[in-house]
Amino acid sequence: MNKLFVVGLGPGNPEFLTEHARQALEQSQLICGYTKYIALIADTFPDKEFFQTPMTGETERCKKALEAAQSGITTSLICSGDSGVYGMASPVLELAPDYPDADIEIVAGITAASSGAAVLGAPLGHDFCIISLSDLLTPFEVIEKRLQATVAGDFAAVLYNPASHKRKDYLQRACRILLDAGKNPDTVCGWVRQIGRDGESFGICSLQELEHFEADMFTTVFIGTSTTKQIGDRMVTPRGYRI
Amino acid sequence: MNKLFVVGLGPGNPEFLTEHARQALEQSQLICGYTKYIALIADTFPDKEFFQTPMTGETERCKKALEAAQSGITTSLICSGDSGVYGMASPVLELAPDYPDADIEIVAGITAASSGAAVLGAPLGHDFCIISLSDLLTPFEVIEKRLQATVAGDFAAVLYNPASHKRKDYLQRACRILLDAGKNPDTVCGWVRQIGRDGESFGICSLQELEHFEADMFTTVFIGTSTTKQIGDRMVTPRGYRI
Repeated sequence: MNKLFVVGLGPGNPEFLTEHARQALEQSQLICGYTKYIALIADTFPDKEFFQTPMTGETERCKKALEAAQSGITTSLICSGDSGVYGMASPVLELAPDYPDADIEIVAGITAASSGAAVLGAPLGHDFCIISLSDLLTPFEVIEKRLQATVAGDFAAVLYNPASHKRKDYLQRACRILLDAGKNPDTVCGWVRQIGRDGESFGICSLQELEHFEADMFTTVFIGTSTTKQIGDRMVTPRGYRI
Repeated sequence: MNKLFVVGLGPGNPEFLTEHARQALEQSQLICGYTKYIALIADTFPDKEFFQTPMTGETERCKKALEAAQSGITTSLICSGDSGVYGMASPVLELAPDYPDADIEIVAGITAASSGAAVLGAPLGHDFCIISLSDLLTPFEVIEKRLQATVAGDFAAVLYNPASHKRKDYLQRACRILLDAGKNPDTVCGWVRQIGRDGESFGICSLQELEHFEADMFTTVFIGTSTTKQIGDRMVTPRGYRI
């Protein structure tokens, strides 16, 4: 059996790799990934063969990696964040039955909910949801229903892909859905741009203010619960210890 | 300013540490943590001073770590998983205003949702929620409301702390709430015990079967969405790529 590692890199900088992920990459002869993610690690693993495709080439990358493993080449397929959260683990495992000699190992990484939360303080100290605002593969009605459910459950929520060139107003739409569902406009919220990369920035604001914030595709957005507070320049959702 | 790192160790074995976390621990003179977590890393960092308290000593550990940093000792406070998800980041930041000379840095780790998902396959390939079933600090009505909201939103859900000595039937109660809220009894579910540690085990079953599964405090439980499927011995929630 020939190994195919599906590796989460974490937020970007190689210092966020786990030892487990580093070892998977070191063992691999071939590393497949989106061009920008290959660029994040190419200097750290200079002796590898790389297979790069642009953002929309996910299926091509998955198949290339599976074919390589099937033919005896130890391979890694890389993703930013966690390979299991909107990452390549799911499409690879859906294609896997056609490549029975590929021995697939999923290698978790730190997803933007965790790495972004660390920048803001502790917004995810209690129960929370992760929702992608991209409707490329999900009908917007499903996204809307899930946003409403976070209000019903008083969950903290992390919004991935809050905007793109074609979806400039999606964060505004999401904020409006949350407000219409009864979320308090004073709810403490936060955003982080370019987590763990050069030019990282962040901010804390109310849900009302967030509605007018211009997110881009490198932004992760955090919506608090009814108990989330701002302490100094940190966003904190109490875990509930009576201290 | 004296550094206090609040460090997530990931699931257990030191190979799941990020380089960032390892550097924080290496820089620290004092490492504070729950006795069992100290045991996980003591061999890797033999030259450190350790401060250990049993499970219920969270506030004592936080204060000890903040006092040490305030007095000039570079300190790490460790948590399993991610320090920001039901971890020490939140209580430390709530106490922080009393220790103005402690320069607190939150260091994310891989939470059980990510590490457990990697064992099962890709159950979290799309939107999901994390809910703790512990009602030590949360009224059970809030937990119930959140479980119901995951059904309304057709979220995948990860259940932390599904049982303990005093809460033997909480996973059963949770399954019953999900079923009563209309979740399909055939929904693909999974569980992982002792993620990333000796004796790791896992299984995939239906929601109906999960109601009769005996979880313990070392188990993490995964509830699928309406699209989650079993492929071979893996649990996979499609991300939506048309492949």
